[in-house]
Amino acid sequence: MTILENIRGPRDLKALSEEELDELAAEIREFLIHAVARTGGHLGPNLGVVELTVALHRVFESPVDKLVWDTGHQSYVHKILTGRKDFSKLRGKGGLSGYPSREESEHDIVENSHASTALGWADGLAKARQVQGEHGHVVAVIGDGALTGGMAWEALNNIAAAKDRPLIIVVNDNERSYAPTIGGLANHLATLRTTDSYEKVLAWGKDVLLRTPVVGHTVYESLHGAKKGFKDAFAPQGMFEDLGLKYVGPIDGHDVGAVESALRRAKRFHGPVLVHCLTEKGRGYEPALADEADRFHTVGVMDPLTCEPLAPSNGPSWTSVFGDEIARIGKEREDVVAITAAMLHPVGLTKFAEQFPDRVWDVGIAEQHAAVSAAGLATGGLHPVVAVYATFLNRAFDQVLMDVALHKCGVTFVLDRAGVTGVDGPSHNGMWDMSMLQVVPGLRIAAPRDADQLRAQLREAVAVDDAPTVLRFPKESVGPSVPAVDRIGGLDVLSRDTEARVLLVSVGVMAPVCLQTADLLRARGVGCTVVDPRWVKPVDPDLPPLAAEHDLVAVVEDNSRSAGVGAAIALALGDAEVDVPVRRFGIPEQFLAHAKRGEVLADIGLTPVEIAGRIGTSLGLKAGKENDA
Amino acid sequence: MTILENIRGPRDLKALSEEELDELAAEIREFLIHAVARTGGHLGPNLGVVELTVALHRVFESPVDKLVWDTGHQSYVHKILTGRKDFSKLRGKGGLSGYPSREESEHDIVENSHASTALGWADGLAKARQVQGEHGHVVAVIGDGALTGGMAWEALNNIAAAKDRPLIIVVNDNERSYAPTIGGLANHLATLRTTDSYEKVLAWGKDVLLRTPVVGHTVYESLHGAKKGFKDAFAPQGMFEDLGLKYVGPIDGHDVGAVESALRRAKRFHGPVLVHCLTEKGRGYEPALADEADRFHTVGVMDPLTCEPLAPSNGPSWTSVFGDEIARIGKEREDVVAITAAMLHPVGLTKFAEQFPDRVWDVGIAEQHAAVSAAGLATGGLHPVVAVYATFLNRAFDQVLMDVALHKCGVTFVLDRAGVTGVDGPSHNGMWDMSMLQVVPGLRIAAPRDADQLRAQLREAVAVDDAPTVLRFPKESVGPSVPAVDRIGGLDVLSRDTEARVLLVSVGVMAPVCLQTADLLRARGVGCTVVDPRWVKPVDPDLPPLAAEHDLVAVVEDNSRSAGVGAAIALALGDAEVDVPVRRFGIPEQFLAHAKRGEVLADIGLTPVEIAGRIGTSLGLKAGKENDA
Repeated sequence: MTILENIRGPRDLKALSEEELDELAAEIREFLIHAVARTGGHLGPNLGVVELTVALHRVFESPVDKLVWDTGHQSYVHKILTGRKDFSKLRGKGGLSGYPSREESEHDIVENSHASTALGWADGLAKARQVQGEHGHVVAVIGDGALTGGMAWEALNNIAAAKDRPLIIVVNDNERSYAPTIGGLANHLATLRTTDSYEKVLAWGKDVLLRTPVVGHTVYESLHGAKKGFKDAFAPQGMFEDLGLKYVGPIDGHDVGAVESALRRAKRFHGPVLVHCLTEKGRGYEPALADEADRFHTVGVMDPLTCEPLAPSNGPSWTSVFGDEIARIGKEREDVVAITAAMLHPVGLTKFAEQFPDRVWDVGIAEQHAAVSAAGLATGGLHPVVAVYATFLNRAFDQVLMDVALHKCGVTFVLDRAGVTGVDGPSHNGMWDMSMLQVVPGLRIAAPRDADQLRAQLREAVAVDDAPTVLRFPKESVGPSVPAVDRIGGLDVLSRDTEARVLLVSVGVMAPVCLQTADLLRARGVGCTVVDPRWVKPVDPDLPPLAAEHDLVAVVEDNSRSAGVGAAIALALGDAEVDVPVRRFGIPEQFLAHAKRGEVLADIGLTPVEIAGRIGTSLGLKAGKENDA
Repeated sequence: MTILENIRGPRDLKALSEEELDELAAEIREFLIHAVARTGGHLGPNLGVVELTVALHRVFESPVDKLVWDTGHQSYVHKILTGRKDFSKLRGKGGLSGYPSREESEHDIVENSHASTALGWADGLAKARQVQGEHGHVVAVIGDGALTGGMAWEALNNIAAAKDRPLIIVVNDNERSYAPTIGGLANHLATLRTTDSYEKVLAWGKDVLLRTPVVGHTVYESLHGAKKGFKDAFAPQGMFEDLGLKYVGPIDGHDVGAVESALRRAKRFHGPVLVHCLTEKGRGYEPALADEADRFHTVGVMDPLTCEPLAPSNGPSWTSVFGDEIARIGKEREDVVAITAAMLHPVGLTKFAEQFPDRVWDVGIAEQHAAVSAAGLATGGLHPVVAVYATFLNRAFDQVLMDVALHKCGVTFVLDRAGVTGVDGPSHNGMWDMSMLQVVPGLRIAAPRDADQLRAQLREAVAVDDAPTVLRFPKESVGPSVPAVDRIGGLDVLSRDTEARVLLVSVGVMAPVCLQTADLLRARGVGCTVVDPRWVKPVDPDLPPLAAEHDLVAVVEDNSRSAGVGAAIALALGDAEVDVPVRRFGIPEQFLAHAKRGEVLADIGLTPVEIAGRIGTSLGLKAGKENDA
């Protein structure tokens, strides 16, 4: 029987000896590598926090003490230690979530996978405790990468202001987001890493300065004679203590004893404390440690020994099509520059960055800054391409509206992972972009249906120099080309019957679904026109007159049914006095539990059978009404 | 002839003597006080930056050098010095904007009035210069309050990372946002203010330590023997230099010579520099300096000597009705707490804060933190009320969705200044909230039509403990009560005809407009039903069957026509197979130039005459079509 098998909850950790803890850490790593290789999931981040998580659960009493995990993809060890060891369906339908989940466990608090939120949550939880006179600790675990996000700063500023409100911030410093963490903060953390801890230096300082009469010159030289020397020697904690946070560190995050000792010190301190732990992403798994591009941050199903993928590849991804084309465009146009928010490789900018290193910026986990600095770049005469996951653009709504659009800046936003992404659960789906952006004056949205369209529309987008453009496409492999049979104004006609009753408006990747829907309706004797507007915002002026030739308009989009493309088309029809009934098919207004994309689409009825059935019902009802009149 | 009269542009400043500069500063203050008293506008912030602005325009060559004003309401002096001295219609239709405006001047860059953006803009502008090999300086002027916003942090982190990219950050430190600036950063700035500048200390340190052999004990004591002593003495610039920014300061921001000298030093430095200027908000105007509540931040039309308002009061404001009721609720329910983002007084939380000082938090200009910490507070067992201007909630969209709604937190968002606000121009209108929030699962939106409804719906909102609620109401005075004549489900019926063809759905404050529209239609023989759904999200289930009894549904909202309440109602009707034509009246998808609220509403056709006319046309067209059929 292994030690891990005997761990049914955090309490079982307390009695373990130092040797047993080492053994347990090794068992957990073994478990993680094999379990995650079977299902896919976040591997590197979890291998890095094994000892840290063990120490947290030995020092604190979850769930009375509150452990808040920033971003949450590093919570697998926490799951294992809180009674969740069945990883067989990790991120799959009915299986464990890839993030903390309140439904799974009372030990989980924050489910949101967007970074930099933990400190704000912790601030709220600590304030609630203070107001209600409750006891217990609040601990937030946040990566160095997530500290680059503005929310972390806003929270630090608030946390530091209350000297009498206990709150423990554990910085899990592995020097990376997906990519190595960038910026002034990263440089500062590097300084902290390479200096002795503050306490050691202070002890030395007292010793040297208090007891030994020395010649000033020597003291000065021993401090390196420069301002940086003074600071490094006496105040390596620098900015955190400047803000008013007690600093403890740096601590070897893979030494359970050292981490525990630091956490116990933090626990005794009755105010805000920051514990700085140094960890290694991918710890204990050679392939992860060796990979510069950090492809082991998230892995697919793979052989844990050879790291060969065990799921068949379905051809090039949308990401790679974008990556190749933007690199080509970069060669042709010197004014095209690129911005990523700590995700250079995942959004496909690797090739562009290799070829044009001076024209690409990783701004950190900082979508707001990605957008506002893009406005500055555009005003300065360049054309920035901001590449982010669709769900993360939520963070930059105000900046897209107020900085980019209000100032008529030519900025192209490329939204990868748009629509239902599936296994990463509710907060990773890119299902809000086409709704949130509907109000932005002048902004244009392209939803390419295939690789050819992606390439063409990317070129159309970067040609716009007086307004923001948005390109959105889904996760995974790009399907076969979907040819147009005709063109009406800006509308690609994908299929058409002579006596068409239904106008199917297909948004982007929904083209095959719409074509199959049309086939099903035809089989029931209902003629259809299927069009792809390509640019779904603004609504093409040729759409209302075309709609007027049909009995029903159905808009199919991989986006929220609320306030999306369907809403915009309904508005345009009303404005044109075209009162053909509109039916909107998309993602219902709810958060979607993790499951495969296809499973989710089936669950929410975004399939040809469901759509055709629903349209049939509407047509039937219409006919009924017409007969009444 | 005054000196000011001879200033036609920044060049004219260069030849002035020290005495003339003092005289000019006095003239500018005199001008500001009288000009702003005549029209209303931002007074305190502009009085604080007179010398700073003069120095900036003497040291830099705008528009070749780029001056970026954060928030922009402190740009009046900049306007005066760049040839814009006609303040007679300040913030009025056709007059000068209250913010920088590209249309007004080539010296203006950023028009957005949302705080904390200037550093991001400057980072983009500086990067563009670097990529294109252009010369010229980029200068961002940002207040200490705006530094509490996450965007500022994201930008600092990026700016500090590039040692070879010149960029000058001028911190205009007046210790205030609207309210005194809060948080760890404010405490740190206070430390900087009360210590000598780094250079002086360094000179002293070299002198003492290098030349004089001393006993260590004495050195140690002279450094105050404590860690804080070391830091204050040797590195008062603390966190900024820790990040990698050169720090210059603190500088007396009212000493033109001192500011100029600091700016010239910053200009010679070929990397990122922060110049810390201390200024006094309201400088030179006694009533402003004496007012603790900072009511001279923005003033209405007033007598500049007595400060008596010269515009008639129209009774209590929406803000005060909310402020009184939330204080009453606070007395009844100990679990109700309040959060403001640096605007305690403007959002009406003064009374609540006086009565329950331990249950209110000013989080700084940090809407993201307001929302995410509210999620933590709610999870901790309290009911937070987050009171912000509607336009500023844009900053917290992701947090409302991913932190508050996903976690089913009972948080009430109170959105003041919703709808068309008018004089503050495009970025202050609260016209996006009801669109942006449509996609948020479980979230409920109340749009009260009068004071009674505001009080009642606030109570309904804070009673919801498993989902976010939103209350939105406009600027200015609350009008007379609008009684309901009947109730259908959740719908208040405000007026009804027996043979009604048109269903007018009135959202919140649009009730009087809808009632007048109905009267106009009746005069043309068209019967109407006017309902107020009170809660506009989700759509009331009784609305579709009621709509089915009419020939046309018209939704009237003080919000973007795109993706708002009209869109939600159209979707609900389609889902219910009710295909009555819908017409949406609201704010067109465009940015609105500054003018009085009434003027803006007239310009965009949100008036009874326009709405009734448009409905008449639709009904006529329908009739025409019916005849054809």
